[in-house]
Amino acid sequence: MHIRKQRLLTPGPTPLYPPALHAMMASDIHHRTEDFRKLYGETLADLKQVLGTSNDVLILVASGTGAMEASVSNLFSRGEKVVVCYAGKFGERWLEMTKAFGLNAIPLKAEYGDVVTPQRLEAALEAEPDVKGVFIQASETSTGAAHDIQAMGRIVAKTSAIFVIDAITGLGTMPLDIDGWGLDVVIGGSQKAFMIPPGLAFLSVSAKAWKKGETSDLPHYYFDLKKEKKNADKGESAYTPSTSLILALNAALKYIKSVGMDKLVANAQLLAKATRAAVTELGLELFSPGSPAASVTAVKAPPGMDSGLIVKGFRTRFGAIIANGQGSMKGQIFRVAHLGYFDFADVFAIVAALEIILAAEGVPVKFGAGVAAAQRVYAEAAGVAR
Amino acid sequence: MHIRKQRLLTPGPTPLYPPALHAMMASDIHHRTEDFRKLYGETLADLKQVLGTSNDVLILVASGTGAMEASVSNLFSRGEKVVVCYAGKFGERWLEMTKAFGLNAIPLKAEYGDVVTPQRLEAALEAEPDVKGVFIQASETSTGAAHDIQAMGRIVAKTSAIFVIDAITGLGTMPLDIDGWGLDVVIGGSQKAFMIPPGLAFLSVSAKAWKKGETSDLPHYYFDLKKEKKNADKGESAYTPSTSLILALNAALKYIKSVGMDKLVANAQLLAKATRAAVTELGLELFSPGSPAASVTAVKAPPGMDSGLIVKGFRTRFGAIIANGQGSMKGQIFRVAHLGYFDFADVFAIVAALEIILAAEGVPVKFGAGVAAAQRVYAEAAGVAR
Repeated sequence: MHIRKQRLLTPGPTPLYPPALHAMMASDIHHRTEDFRKLYGETLADLKQVLGTSNDVLILVASGTGAMEASVSNLFSRGEKVVVCYAGKFGERWLEMTKAFGLNAIPLKAEYGDVVTPQRLEAALEAEPDVKGVFIQASETSTGAAHDIQAMGRIVAKTSAIFVIDAITGLGTMPLDIDGWGLDVVIGGSQKAFMIPPGLAFLSVSAKAWKKGETSDLPHYYFDLKKEKKNADKGESAYTPSTSLILALNAALKYIKSVGMDKLVANAQLLAKATRAAVTELGLELFSPGSPAASVTAVKAPPGMDSGLIVKGFRTRFGAIIANGQGSMKGQIFRVAHLGYFDFADVFAIVAALEIILAAEGVPVKFGAGVAAAQRVYAEAAGVAR
Repeated sequence: MHIRKQRLLTPGPTPLYPPALHAMMASDIHHRTEDFRKLYGETLADLKQVLGTSNDVLILVASGTGAMEASVSNLFSRGEKVVVCYAGKFGERWLEMTKAFGLNAIPLKAEYGDVVTPQRLEAALEAEPDVKGVFIQASETSTGAAHDIQAMGRIVAKTSAIFVIDAITGLGTMPLDIDGWGLDVVIGGSQKAFMIPPGLAFLSVSAKAWKKGETSDLPHYYFDLKKEKKNADKGESAYTPSTSLILALNAALKYIKSVGMDKLVANAQLLAKATRAAVTELGLELFSPGSPAASVTAVKAPPGMDSGLIVKGFRTRFGAIIANGQGSMKGQIFRVAHLGYFDFADVFAIVAALEIILAAEGVPVKFGAGVAAAQRVYAEAAGVAR
């Protein structure tokens, strides 16, 4: 109990890939040099390969929200009708942002923990044929729910609207076939499955989205996608890049390429499955049982218990940071992440710690029962005979 | 399974304390400057405080074996009679070393897994009253056994012999009252409970040891304790110090001071207890059940199984490095460490992984059973009601 290692188990920032962290030490590099252009160009190429798209991929010095704003301010025009699918705190951000830029946002709301179905989106687009864009979260980090992006992509592709996806926690945790599913803008952030600190956002932009952006009339300067694209083609960024984070991203992408993006996704999905099995075995309820995301598992606190006690238990007993619910869900749920640099040993430790925390709060727990449920998921996936 | 974090679970090198690792980045410092003298002096003072001794404490640029040699070559004379207590591979190193320097070594051997008792040492010293030194391991890393240093110190203190203790894995994992127990030379290494990479050795030297060393006639140059002491008093080292590791040690000592050395020891002892409970619950046998060390737990592989399969299982399934047996014990036992920057979440993960590895090798295992045994040790120590 006297040594408590710091363990970052939140859905971003996430655990860092150590060699990426170490690569940041080479930051005494000037960004307008051939060396850096080579690095930046290679990083962009690796990112594009990892995202698995032929669309343009751009990196911005911003948090993920910056790339969300860039997609609004660069691709739309004042008063345009858009559909905003929202089912949590990050969905609400799309709503606020599109309104802030004067778009005419039609909200498609789902309750927290639930998702907006493809059927509802299809109906909305049929009812409003002049919709110019659809905004959504691939994985809604605040509730641990995942949208059916594949089915929705197929629906939006049939219209003239562009499909803008906040995949900040979706990338690396769920399959996202950008080209095959018609995902026009896909947004990611460095501090998620990419295993490096926050500070970089990136996005892919389809030909359909570029085309739509040509007539955009919204004000923007720093987030200038066309300018970034022009510079990216030369291995440069429009404004001063975050050199340390580019070095980190370069190292992390080499690792992700060696693992394989599909396997990184499979890893998150398996850890999420093991975590769901464990908490269910412990008698806890999932917050999004219908469409659970693999980025983060949101779990309801036992009836009558503030989930903050569980968050506090992780911190004080085990030095581990997990996430409470956000906004109105605070105190109701707790969230453990699986995105990026997480492995099964993490799950075992988290579940054993959770069992102790619950026991300390008077919840009847059979020690090892949740761990065993997670172990069974491992054993099944690894073909370990029982 | 696709992400396997590297976890270093061996009895040295041990898991690194991240801020100590980061501190190494400030190595662009010259060692003959006021800044470095301040750092070096502070590090020596902190080390002395953490060791809890009023004896002189010196740091050498060497692995632990270098400090062992320094204690022989600086404090003894050719042909002197010494008692070497040995019960494993590191004890044998004392025997080889004292012989290499021409000492007349009386071996006191215990079988691997066993220890030399204070009674045997007492009898040996009574039989040979002209013994000038006693050499021993506090914790014999190769077998996971701990000697009764307190009782032995009391026995040696009554003689004119000096007591030289290889506490390389003992420091930070067992109580060692250097001044109170009459421990004349206590040797440590950086890559153990001190949570930093290998490359530094240190030792404390009592007045009795200095006095004895005055007449030493053995050849030495690099390992010159008197010269190191003279330099240390000025905040310097005799030869070029390992600046990066001094920076790391400085940071790690600040952390150890904040935890408290007694609590660091209690931590290792509790983790060792939890690990013993877990492996016993899984039906495995401890290799040193009588005098188990808290530095490392040595466990016999199930009958008929090569322990290398368990070591390999940790590496390939979980990216974790545990230790096989050394020398003749290779294939018989496996060893997991607890010294330094280890916590309960590590134990939970290690035990759950071990359960899976055993199951994969066809050993009947009830998933979660070993973890539950470790959790009970936590719960008892933390006062979590069950």
